[in-house]
Amino acid sequence: MVDYVADYLEEIEKRQVFPGVEPGYLRPLIADCAPQDPESFEDVFKDIEKIIMPGVTHWHSPYFFAYFPAASSFPALLADMLCGGIGCVGFSWAASPACTELETVMLDWLGKMVNLPEEFLAGKDGQGGGVIQGSASEATLIALLAARTKTIRQVQSEKPELTETEIMGRLVAYASDQAHSSVERAALIGAVKIKSVPSDDTFSVCGSALRKVLDEDKAAGLIPFFFCATLGTTPCCSFDKLLELGPICNKENIWMHIDAAYAGSAFICPEFRHLLNGVEFADSFNFNPHKWLLVNFDCSAMWVKKRSDLIGAFKLEPLYLQHHHQESGLVTDYRHWQIPLGRRFRSLKLWFVLRMYGVKGLQEHIRKVTGNCLLGYPVVGRQGEMSWLPTCSPWLLCTSQSTGNILKGAARLPHVRIVNTKLMIKPVGGGLDKHIRLSHQFEHLVLQDERFEICAEVVLGLVCFRLKGSNELNEALLKSINDAKKIHLVPCHLREKFVLRFAICSRTVESTHIKFAWQHISQLATDLLKTWEQNHHQQ
Amino acid sequence: MVDYVADYLEEIEKRQVFPGVEPGYLRPLIADCAPQDPESFEDVFKDIEKIIMPGVTHWHSPYFFAYFPAASSFPALLADMLCGGIGCVGFSWAASPACTELETVMLDWLGKMVNLPEEFLAGKDGQGGGVIQGSASEATLIALLAARTKTIRQVQSEKPELTETEIMGRLVAYASDQAHSSVERAALIGAVKIKSVPSDDTFSVCGSALRKVLDEDKAAGLIPFFFCATLGTTPCCSFDKLLELGPICNKENIWMHIDAAYAGSAFICPEFRHLLNGVEFADSFNFNPHKWLLVNFDCSAMWVKKRSDLIGAFKLEPLYLQHHHQESGLVTDYRHWQIPLGRRFRSLKLWFVLRMYGVKGLQEHIRKVTGNCLLGYPVVGRQGEMSWLPTCSPWLLCTSQSTGNILKGAARLPHVRIVNTKLMIKPVGGGLDKHIRLSHQFEHLVLQDERFEICAEVVLGLVCFRLKGSNELNEALLKSINDAKKIHLVPCHLREKFVLRFAICSRTVESTHIKFAWQHISQLATDLLKTWEQNHHQQ
Repeated sequence: MVDYVADYLEEIEKRQVFPGVEPGYLRPLIADCAPQDPESFEDVFKDIEKIIMPGVTHWHSPYFFAYFPAASSFPALLADMLCGGIGCVGFSWAASPACTELETVMLDWLGKMVNLPEEFLAGKDGQGGGVIQGSASEATLIALLAARTKTIRQVQSEKPELTETEIMGRLVAYASDQAHSSVERAALIGAVKIKSVPSDDTFSVCGSALRKVLDEDKAAGLIPFFFCATLGTTPCCSFDKLLELGPICNKENIWMHIDAAYAGSAFICPEFRHLLNGVEFADSFNFNPHKWLLVNFDCSAMWVKKRSDLIGAFKLEPLYLQHHHQESGLVTDYRHWQIPLGRRFRSLKLWFVLRMYGVKGLQEHIRKVTGNCLLGYPVVGRQGEMSWLPTCSPWLLCTSQSTGNILKGAARLPHVRIVNTKLMIKPVGGGLDKHIRLSHQFEHLVLQDERFEICAEVVLGLVCFRLKGSNELNEALLKSINDAKKIHLVPCHLREKFVLRFAICSRTVESTHIKFAWQHISQLATDLLKTWEQNHHQQ
Repeated sequence: MVDYVADYLEEIEKRQVFPGVEPGYLRPLIADCAPQDPESFEDVFKDIEKIIMPGVTHWHSPYFFAYFPAASSFPALLADMLCGGIGCVGFSWAASPACTELETVMLDWLGKMVNLPEEFLAGKDGQGGGVIQGSASEATLIALLAARTKTIRQVQSEKPELTETEIMGRLVAYASDQAHSSVERAALIGAVKIKSVPSDDTFSVCGSALRKVLDEDKAAGLIPFFFCATLGTTPCCSFDKLLELGPICNKENIWMHIDAAYAGSAFICPEFRHLLNGVEFADSFNFNPHKWLLVNFDCSAMWVKKRSDLIGAFKLEPLYLQHHHQESGLVTDYRHWQIPLGRRFRSLKLWFVLRMYGVKGLQEHIRKVTGNCLLGYPVVGRQGEMSWLPTCSPWLLCTSQSTGNILKGAARLPHVRIVNTKLMIKPVGGGLDKHIRLSHQFEHLVLQDERFEICAEVVLGLVCFRLKGSNELNEALLKSINDAKKIHLVPCHLREKFVLRFAICSRTVESTHIKFAWQHISQLATDLLKTWEQNHHQQ
């Protein structure tokens, strides 16, 4: 099985990225019920290629550009084998001390890697700390529930005449109109109202937009209690303006949760850390190493400033779950931090990946080409200015060995400026990271084709693009792309526009795959436009 | 790593079952932050024994008798390796058709193995079907949320003058006073009232008890909407009386969810299936193959009669999660059935385990000794009457080759009767299954010692026992057992009594381990009683 998995991942490029099966394909291929007698491993093993693989969407194929990346690496796979072998259910400290304590320390490691404020770290006696959730959806839900309990208790102490039901009926949560559907779902589960805050032209929520809805709702007698800010929205990877939003939330006593599910991994690179500025105002923060940090699903990292807020929302203690050390300040019982009771030993994956790659290795996985490349062309920065500083001005002065070539394509990019024949690069989107370099390579290719447009600023590894024209035209283009099954994409809506999302996903994706993908899309567009115009003429 | 895991599991008996570490042991052993440069696999690997293992509670040790079993088997570990390798995130059909379709079919297989009514199966066009949740807690929560939405919609259509908040304020859920804490937690999350229904002398909820609270609450203007029945409660493995409770729930339009987290696996043996009679009245049913069916955590199987009830509680459809086949009746998008969005390919574990053990193999794992053994003594049943019938009278006539020996110990057991010198055995607790044989072996040993008492009927693999005497005495006994760290147990409360739970857990536990455990407990009790009486005399 080890060999099979290794071969599968090493030769995944040869497989068709999206399966050709129709719904219901599998049932006729297997028996109607479980066999009475045991079958051999060989018999089961043979059926993997026969029954399973034909229906697999290959998330780790370098031709997979859909959704967001799903992380995968051999160190994480090895750690998962150990996790399965130990097979503990670590819901409390006593149920497996190593499972609990490694998790606490790994979340501190990871928190330091993204330079989280001290308050979010557990340390030896901190009030905050981190936990591994199964998904960002659960992190959002947990944060919302903690905020709900905290607010209800507070309002009850201030206005004892209100019943819990009455308070619940007035609570209102907020998130960007670009936020992930899981935020709305969390509110639905928690039985509280939720309102969309309109994002601006860059699909970001700014302070004034939040201020406006808060004032209206407070005037109407509602009780704002929770705001979920998004860093790296799912449709187009936009960033809510934490530095404006945070102070408002703090002032209004609103729990601010930050969902950075995809983008968070990039914050381990100092040049992207500024996108997280404002986290100091948040109550909780979450990102998914299982998306972009080479840790296999599931591993969603969540931190809170006050662990007592989470625990307070849930703590119920039947005797069979109590243990001697429970009252010690050193002991964490993670079951109080999450929806399920049971939990696997997932911190092993973080431990293996962080050690076997090292911080530099992980930055390199994200960066790969370090500081000398823009859109595939070599770039030399002025001495001392090419070392990326986390909070400095975003503009750096560069010289290029082939400025002419760069200028042709790069001058149209939002992160490049030419001032007095000198090339200025903004590190954000500067094209110096692997996935991000590739996304800018793709962006560049799109921009060179007059038929297409870019629909949102490319900051990390996602490019939103479309044919200039109707939504129907773009829906037809996407259909022809996905029907051909050579690459796989999914769409989104930005305002009223139907947009194609091109996400850099695979650990092994290279520039050649990007070029292939673009040529393929471009050719399909040409074919489509030909038919489309003919039909249009006929009409 | 494969070798390490295999060795670990094969030689686990040699390890101290409960770790000797104190809270905070791990942090000083490892670095303060992640290394900048990569470390070798060998370096990480060495640290497993040095840092991790000293803090591991060995759930698969044959000396582990705490909580309930955590399943583990090599077929499941192999399948998990494949799951990690494929590394898909199967939230929708399109995200990985094989992941979705295998799950649907495996849940049908498993449903047939426990003889679930047809309505719970997906089949080709059923309205019901199964899903793998992470834990029973999540299954309970999902069921409660679905019931909440369904009831609110219904009440709103009948009484449009009521607001959603008003309806929410009147909703009330119910569960046994013996139910798992996750039921109360589900109600807390869902922001609805929950009430305990008093269990009877056998720790089971009967129809009249539910009827009484329902009538009171309805008279007070509340809206009963959800009842969680438990088969195999966590404290003492008691069984709520489904055949009485089900019709009441159906008549009152109350969603009945059955939580059989631990006990459910036993229902694959026809002789235990009658414990599930009444499931036909339920709306949803859940048990954990990851507890007792050799499928590694996490794999909690849940079925519903109407999938539209689950989906209706949650469905939100952003464009990036839509796909072409969505409207087809054959297509299941499991993200609508669960709290998280993402999900691993967990059905592979079921597929490997069900095929490589076969139904008989799994029954044998549970049974091992088939039909000729009671408390270690051979028993011969009258021709034709030893084949266990699922719904027949629970009493079977037997003859024994060594009746004298059996009578001495067995006559005190609740599942044995002697009628006119003839031995009658009730298949439930008949001691004919492996884990259950071992639990009765332990029960028998306890009953032979006048200092101890059995606190609840032993039906499956759990024995609740205590020293006759005060709670303090039993707390001291448990402390001395767990301090010695040769075996590991956890306690529970039954009414006001502090009770020790002895759960048969490990896949490899044998009669010798049970004997050792009892001798150890018995010796510690002797030592304790000596000191205790001295102290008592001094006072």
